[in-house]
Amino acid sequence: MLTAADLHPSLSDPGLSVMSFLNEATARYPDAVSFASGRPHEQFFELGSLEVFLARFLDHLRTERGLSEGAVTRELLQYGATSGIIRELIATMLRTDEQISVDPRSVVVTTGCQEALLITLRTLFGGPDDALLVASPCYAGVTGAALLLGIRVEHVPEGPWGLAPEQVLAAVKQLIGEGRRPRALYVVPEGANPGGTSLGLDARKELIALAQEYDFLLIEDHAYAVFAPAGSPPSLKALDDAAQVIHIGTFSKSGFPGLRLGYVVADQALSDGTGPTRLLADALSDVKSMVTVNTSPIAQAIAGGMLLSCGFSLRKANAEAALFYRENLATAHRELTRAFSAPDKTVSWNRPESGFFMVVSVPFEADDEALERSAHDYQVLWTPMRYFQRAGGERKLRLSLSYLTPAEIRTGISRLANFIEDERARQTT
Amino acid sequence: MLTAADLHPSLSDPGLSVMSFLNEATARYPDAVSFASGRPHEQFFELGSLEVFLARFLDHLRTERGLSEGAVTRELLQYGATSGIIRELIATMLRTDEQISVDPRSVVVTTGCQEALLITLRTLFGGPDDALLVASPCYAGVTGAALLLGIRVEHVPEGPWGLAPEQVLAAVKQLIGEGRRPRALYVVPEGANPGGTSLGLDARKELIALAQEYDFLLIEDHAYAVFAPAGSPPSLKALDDAAQVIHIGTFSKSGFPGLRLGYVVADQALSDGTGPTRLLADALSDVKSMVTVNTSPIAQAIAGGMLLSCGFSLRKANAEAALFYRENLATAHRELTRAFSAPDKTVSWNRPESGFFMVVSVPFEADDEALERSAHDYQVLWTPMRYFQRAGGERKLRLSLSYLTPAEIRTGISRLANFIEDERARQTT
Repeated sequence: MLTAADLHPSLSDPGLSVMSFLNEATARYPDAVSFASGRPHEQFFELGSLEVFLARFLDHLRTERGLSEGAVTRELLQYGATSGIIRELIATMLRTDEQISVDPRSVVVTTGCQEALLITLRTLFGGPDDALLVASPCYAGVTGAALLLGIRVEHVPEGPWGLAPEQVLAAVKQLIGEGRRPRALYVVPEGANPGGTSLGLDARKELIALAQEYDFLLIEDHAYAVFAPAGSPPSLKALDDAAQVIHIGTFSKSGFPGLRLGYVVADQALSDGTGPTRLLADALSDVKSMVTVNTSPIAQAIAGGMLLSCGFSLRKANAEAALFYRENLATAHRELTRAFSAPDKTVSWNRPESGFFMVVSVPFEADDEALERSAHDYQVLWTPMRYFQRAGGERKLRLSLSYLTPAEIRTGISRLANFIEDERARQTT
Repeated sequence: MLTAADLHPSLSDPGLSVMSFLNEATARYPDAVSFASGRPHEQFFELGSLEVFLARFLDHLRTERGLSEGAVTRELLQYGATSGIIRELIATMLRTDEQISVDPRSVVVTTGCQEALLITLRTLFGGPDDALLVASPCYAGVTGAALLLGIRVEHVPEGPWGLAPEQVLAAVKQLIGEGRRPRALYVVPEGANPGGTSLGLDARKELIALAQEYDFLLIEDHAYAVFAPAGSPPSLKALDDAAQVIHIGTFSKSGFPGLRLGYVVADQALSDGTGPTRLLADALSDVKSMVTVNTSPIAQAIAGGMLLSCGFSLRKANAEAALFYRENLATAHRELTRAFSAPDKTVSWNRPESGFFMVVSVPFEADDEALERSAHDYQVLWTPMRYFQRAGGERKLRLSLSYLTPAEIRTGISRLANFIEDERARQTT
């Protein structure tokens, strides 16, 4: 019989099964209020939009690009370019929404943000001394992909406002001192999962300057950008004039997850030693050809139709959703404030204005057992922050506010407050 | 500037860019007859089928599974189970078409056959002494995925009828003698790409017996199964009563490539040392969660509708296509026979009855330069077999017969014959 210990070592790492564990916990308590699920809310989904967007893209192929019926069928149903068929449309959206100006040839369309992360890591990391820097806490999809590829990860503790440039600098210097190479830093500048933090303009600029000085790349994950409040700083890529930033995005939040569609922008020139020969995007595409060959042109067509239908502004198309998510964050803050109005300071939380997540600090171990009690006895689910960081998350929990209505949030926070009070009482008896 | 040498070593291996090279050559000679493209023929594609199959699956969800409209929308547009939402339908198809009886829980739906290969290799290969055995010549997608993952590959020379069990045994014994572990053998028993070979019943049974005796797994790629002539032997998985076989399939040939949909069947029990705890499929699913999270439910819905519409028999649905491809193979054989009717035996070819491919041996180096002359001067494209094997392919070329009409094949073989005659003349002058 096959034994688990005999498989790839990543299979024995809890980091690989976080996702399944969370799904399983949610499935066991279907009636609980779940602050665990980071899904976008389905009130913004319309099944009929599949047909509408697909028709819009087919019209684009026939009318604007002048394709014959045979060529249209081929574009949708046949094998296609590994880099994708909607690169121009994505480049136009990036210019419209994010003030990012890039040649469409530097865009690779991927099977979700996850494939974008995987192929980026595989392409960049070659040697055993290469280190991937990540914030601690960090999105499990990045550390999971690194596990599959045997890439060494260095965790940089987040400050209250997210990744602090001085902490990154310290980590970079330590790595160099150890004879290792800081190859890339993964960073979510807007509404980070799981910490909920967003970086200010100065921090963004300093990270780019650091990357340039110490010759590492920034892998920017901009999944939650469309939900940022007006006046938020530009993306790292928009601020990047030295090609230090690889920019990753997804349609899972700005469109819907069922598309499984993302993209990576890699406009860095690659040299063969004598001079520039091609773009980093071309290397990513070579790697992608051995992961999924190419991204489903059907999914690309639907996303393409979506971009054409909204005048290339996913921010505008998501204005209502952005308001909903921001109000959910505000509701959670208000309800927590109401529940913990006593002068007791042992329960605290951050106050993100962007993204789907916030973090609550509690005066007890927020572990699997605590989660089980919370789910079983109080019918409220959350995610232990320890899943996302090696140290410092023991007494913290993540609340996802995206998949709940305001009424559900009120009920959930009330249950959570009861749970927290009772846990505190357990500690002191 | 980033240098190519500074990226992951796989990026410097020609094995990773075979696909792009072939596409690029085809694009440069749009008017050539191309025996290079292994695409399925578009005469069997209907753009309108997208809508029909999708509607059929939605009806299935509403009527047969009794889902509410909200649940239907969630199933199609939201994140979903990593293992897929059409596992039962695929299991029914496997029982109907392939006499493979498996629990649907042992099926993982993947983003094409390529992701199935990648996650299977990542899951199985843990140690530096683990070896992946492949036929030589071998499909570039397997060796490419192994390159990305740093897996050592051992090439077993094919005989005229494909992978010979005695050659596999010799390779296995040699590996064991070197203190290494033969972990798995990748095998395409029906219409192999690129060799065109199909294994007889005895060879299939012997491979399973060998795998059992020497404790390695068989990774069966059954991409071309639906085109096999009546009376072909059963798949390895259908013959497997000791769970030695991991079975991989794709909808790219039986449906259409734009779906980017495949599946892997892994019903092996996994033990944690004390007893069976879960299936190998569950481990594959954990790995998949870090590659593409889950497979697009939209693509799954279309494939599901296809399965429901054809009574779960892709073989029946593809009967006309199978005839077309087999007749194309026969046409190529007939035209080659006509062109090389002289007693000269320096040009020969095999005669596959299944799949998309055949191999022609020529009396000169079939390399990139020869291909360039063939394309430029004779307007006929093919693939050097050296792309698919380390040794033995220097004077061989692969013909793909799938993407051409009989008339195009006649024209193409006539051009190819002229090219071969002139190359031979070049050699002797």
